Amino acid sequence: MQRIHFNEVVTRDGFQNEPAFVPTDDKVALIDELSACGYAKIEVTSFTSAKAIPMLRDAEEVMGRIRRVPGLETTVLVPNVRGAERALECRADELNLVMSTSETHNLANLRMPREHSFGGLREVVQMAHGRVAVNVSLSCCFGCPMEGDVPEAEVLRWADRFAELGVRGLTICDTTGMAHPGQVRQMARTLRQRYPGLQMTLHFHNTRGMGLANLLAAVEEGITRFDGSLGGLGGCPYAPGATGNICSEDAIHMLQALGLDTGIDLPRLLAAARRLPDIVGHDVPGQVAKAGPIQQLHPAPAYVQELRERFA
Amino acid sequence: MQRIHFNEVVTRDGFQNEPAFVPTDDKVALIDELSACGYAKIEVTSFTSAKAIPMLRDAEEVMGRIRRVPGLETTVLVPNVRGAERALECRADELNLVMSTSETHNLANLRMPREHSFGGLREVVQMAHGRVAVNVSLSCCFGCPMEGDVPEAEVLRWADRFAELGVRGLTICDTTGMAHPGQVRQMARTLRQRYPGLQMTLHFHNTRGMGLANLLAAVEEGITRFDGSLGGLGGCPYAPGATGNICSEDAIHMLQALGLDTGIDLPRLLAAARRLPDIVGHDVPGQVAKAGPIQQLHPAPAYVQELRERFA
Repeated sequence: MQRIHFNEVVTRDGFQNEPAFVPTDDKVALIDELSACGYAKIEVTSFTSAKAIPMLRDAEEVMGRIRRVPGLETTVLVPNVRGAERALECRADELNLVMSTSETHNLANLRMPREHSFGGLREVVQMAHGRVAVNVSLSCCFGCPMEGDVPEAEVLRWADRFAELGVRGLTICDTTGMAHPGQVRQMARTLRQRYPGLQMTLHFHNTRGMGLANLLAAVEEGITRFDGSLGGLGGCPYAPGATGNICSEDAIHMLQALGLDTGIDLPRLLAAARRLPDIVGHDVPGQVAKAGPIQQLHPAPAYVQELRERFA
Repeated sequence: MQRIHFNEVVTRDGFQNEPAFVPTDDKVALIDELSACGYAKIEVTSFTSAKAIPMLRDAEEVMGRIRRVPGLETTVLVPNVRGAERALECRADELNLVMSTSETHNLANLRMPREHSFGGLREVVQMAHGRVAVNVSLSCCFGCPMEGDVPEAEVLRWADRFAELGVRGLTICDTTGMAHPGQVRQMARTLRQRYPGLQMTLHFHNTRGMGLANLLAAVEEGITRFDGSLGGLGGCPYAPGATGNICSEDAIHMLQALGLDTGIDLPRLLAAARRLPDIVGHDVPGQVAKAGPIQQLHPAPAYVQELRERFA
């Protein structure tokens, strides 16, 4: 059975986009619950400024209070050297750096040209060298909601530059759910061939309902690392109407149905997912938490037994 | 480009499961809108008793008032010879007969054993011979929410019996969204090999989020006919928490992104989908109608231009 490494991003990518601040106690309790489920990584929080992302202003406190589980990596989003220093003080296992492969999206999201972002992130990679693992998440790799197509060559140009800096991994993000399975197959083949030594993660959104189809295509092309968000939380403010990340429990349910080894305790994960609407105060897109996994059967209506007897 | 034949089932499978009766005028207007979109078939209504399915008690009136479009087939659900006579009086192009491959589901849904259902439907096929095309929809072909696994051999046993009766087509239904893509691939290969002369349709539900992944798997295995429901309406009362059929516009959007020829005017279809919540009085699961198709770009925030100039 192929081993799939699944990363949970709900407390960062999900909660960052929530309209209301999720209380620190709830964040810590949820992360501790998720830590017991068998994830490869949990993206705990973001060491950005409290002004830029007020919903994650409790980064230090969350990192200080969560239970550390052997074998589970904590990863944190880091925008610059100052953020990296804070992350190191908090003993994060991995720094996750972000920039966009689309110039317009990078300007909209990070308020600087891509070349400036790259320069700043290079400093972080150099500072982290020998101290902590670094992953780089590249946004809009399957299209930009403002520019449209982002050519594969442009994605690879940025991926190459970070690979040359010696990062441990790259996450290729479909930030606003523009990828389709044909494009994912092509990208997955290219990535596997070009970066055999890197941790290569794919990050899908379900904006147009294709999230799990894209996951299927990527898995079939041999990609083994994926991000997902509990309940399907998340989104992107630059793509109105966009729903969130692929739902972790729906994705893991499908991967397990396909016979893949995710290392995840699905019943435990579903229990966590079922508490999520209470934490965020609204319904969430995830479906398996509502319908139950395939294996969960339902009783037949009482009249079925009567009918069986009548027709016996 | 491979030609995909897509069937719309919202006014039957969707409206049948709505809590409130959809007014006849709305049904007729919606079908006329959908008839202009390029579907292969529209399942207009059901000729069951008004007591059994009160939401479709206006079957004759709907069939009498809709505009007939050359090249578009109207299909109607028919439970027995009496229903078939009503359908023929209304000039339906196809009769769609239904039974389940699961004994328990057949008892729950049709209140008789499968063998009784088969006997009744055989009479309908014989009566329709030479007068109107017949399709048979087999429920629970990928699992039963009460029995669990339904072996492929059991599905094929019933499919064979109808194929021997000379039906034009079979629809293999994942009635409560239990199929996963590995299972769909296997089933699709078997069906293509075993029934080369029949119209072979797959009918998926998105209960556990795998609807479009299953569609992808089936398309990649050469299946070319699919059912879907506008907005993703539909469901099954025997699987609590179940969401509906795969959403037609989301499915067609993905098929077109994959470069397949669906024959569907997607912008027109999305316009119809966007009016659906007003017709049924609630939000619907479909996502492309909310987020827009991949090709629909969004303007960059105003500060992006300022940033471009500042960094120029």
